[in-house]
Amino acid sequence: MKLLRYGAPGAEKPGLLHRDGTLRDLSDLIDDLSGAALSPESLAGLAEVDADSLPVVEDNPRLGPPIAGTGKFICIGLNYADHAAESGLDVPPEPVIFMKASSAICGPNDPIVIPRGSTKTDWEVELAVIIGKPAKYVSEAEAMDYVAGYAITNDVSERAFQTERAGQWTKGKSCDNFGQIGPWLVTQDEVPDPQSLAMWLKVNGETMQDGSSSTMVYGVAHLVHYLSQFMTLHPGDVISTGTPPGVGLGMTPPRYLKAGDVVELGIAGLGLQRQDVIADQ
Amino acid sequence: MKLLRYGAPGAEKPGLLHRDGTLRDLSDLIDDLSGAALSPESLAGLAEVDADSLPVVEDNPRLGPPIAGTGKFICIGLNYADHAAESGLDVPPEPVIFMKASSAICGPNDPIVIPRGSTKTDWEVELAVIIGKPAKYVSEAEAMDYVAGYAITNDVSERAFQTERAGQWTKGKSCDNFGQIGPWLVTQDEVPDPQSLAMWLKVNGETMQDGSSSTMVYGVAHLVHYLSQFMTLHPGDVISTGTPPGVGLGMTPPRYLKAGDVVELGIAGLGLQRQDVIADQ
Repeated sequence: MKLLRYGAPGAEKPGLLHRDGTLRDLSDLIDDLSGAALSPESLAGLAEVDADSLPVVEDNPRLGPPIAGTGKFICIGLNYADHAAESGLDVPPEPVIFMKASSAICGPNDPIVIPRGSTKTDWEVELAVIIGKPAKYVSEAEAMDYVAGYAITNDVSERAFQTERAGQWTKGKSCDNFGQIGPWLVTQDEVPDPQSLAMWLKVNGETMQDGSSSTMVYGVAHLVHYLSQFMTLHPGDVISTGTPPGVGLGMTPPRYLKAGDVVELGIAGLGLQRQDVIADQ
Repeated sequence: MKLLRYGAPGAEKPGLLHRDGTLRDLSDLIDDLSGAALSPESLAGLAEVDADSLPVVEDNPRLGPPIAGTGKFICIGLNYADHAAESGLDVPPEPVIFMKASSAICGPNDPIVIPRGSTKTDWEVELAVIIGKPAKYVSEAEAMDYVAGYAITNDVSERAFQTERAGQWTKGKSCDNFGQIGPWLVTQDEVPDPQSLAMWLKVNGETMQDGSSSTMVYGVAHLVHYLSQFMTLHPGDVISTGTPPGVGLGMTPPRYLKAGDVVELGIAGLGLQRQDVIADQ
């Protein structure tokens, strides 16, 4: 299934993408794509619904993030071997984790908003893992039982805020509209191997990132296991698993986003995102 | 007012501490201490209620965290001049920020749970600022208009996870039950000067921290202003403003918590916390 949320920010309704290409409403079946609605049992129930019988959503509404109630937006740093190599850095001995503010989360086609004072706003296409039920101290072998599915994330990053403004990376990762997620939550059954997905990102039509999750150092099952040793993962939590080569920071000279740019990104089987870049008022 | 939440974890009800020492229930007036209920208008309305008329809560229930719906649990690092000096470190040129997982939040007297594999679980008494309405690009002069009030936080920290396990501090700050908040949200009118509050922490009756918010480097108004330049602060967001000297890491030799220890902490006018230290199962 390709589950989604549509409507105005903060007032989204749950829905799904039908195989015929139409959006269908799920409001009669679940309140939202959050909490218990993301459990394996709930998703199995939705999978049995005759999608043809669901109301069609007309008028091509805005898409919101495909999940609600995200308590943690956890990111993995330096998790692609080819990205580490191009950066001249060693692969870390265990996953590097940091957090984005959940208030940075927005819809897949919502604009990238360059914050006031920014000179180095950058892009990062990433495979996001959505947690489906509480996970604590889970083994790698059982880790996938706790995953609801996958989505695309743009881990938008302000490099000066991230590394030149004292301390941790949080400042450069948490700005409003720095976390596009979607268009869909794609359930596990449609993603048989999350470690072999082509992923790409373009700026104004020019390819910047063209990688594959096959070069991910610490894979999805390991990350769920690993993180669950430190904290309980809850339904709706998002793990953004790192970015392949090709970010603006890594270019010579570095290249950053400016108002008027258009960013497009995609991961095989998970859909596309398209964002206008605008300056904050 | 001293606002609070009482009851079982996840099922807390809103209440307040009456001046006669009893707990009073606020369920008939607000759904919870979250979102719009934390706005200045809402707090002003609650202040006009005749507390004598409110139902008494009997049987000394568990206290939960005094606010719900916390999206961001932001901490300020190295924000006490005397703590920086004892650490042999310079005061940072601007605030150092990092985030704890909101899933670490628990009640003021809930146990400190030592996670599996931990050898360096440490304490940090901190003054927490609770946001009352959305704040973005606010000036320092107007920053206090966005503050609902204050609470005590224990920013429990696993030092090996924080600094010896690759990457950012998140791993050592986000474990379950690593963020006791409360006992109360004390509204601003009862805290005329947040920069002159005595604060202390004891382990098994022995004083470990004995400081004052007067040595805080970046004060409350500056922090709200500063953070709002990077991201929108939302009602219920928590800013934990750093710890004075006396953490276990800074001792010679370092001293850490073990199962069976009892931690007590307090800030003048904001109440007390008491926590049993237990090992995770």
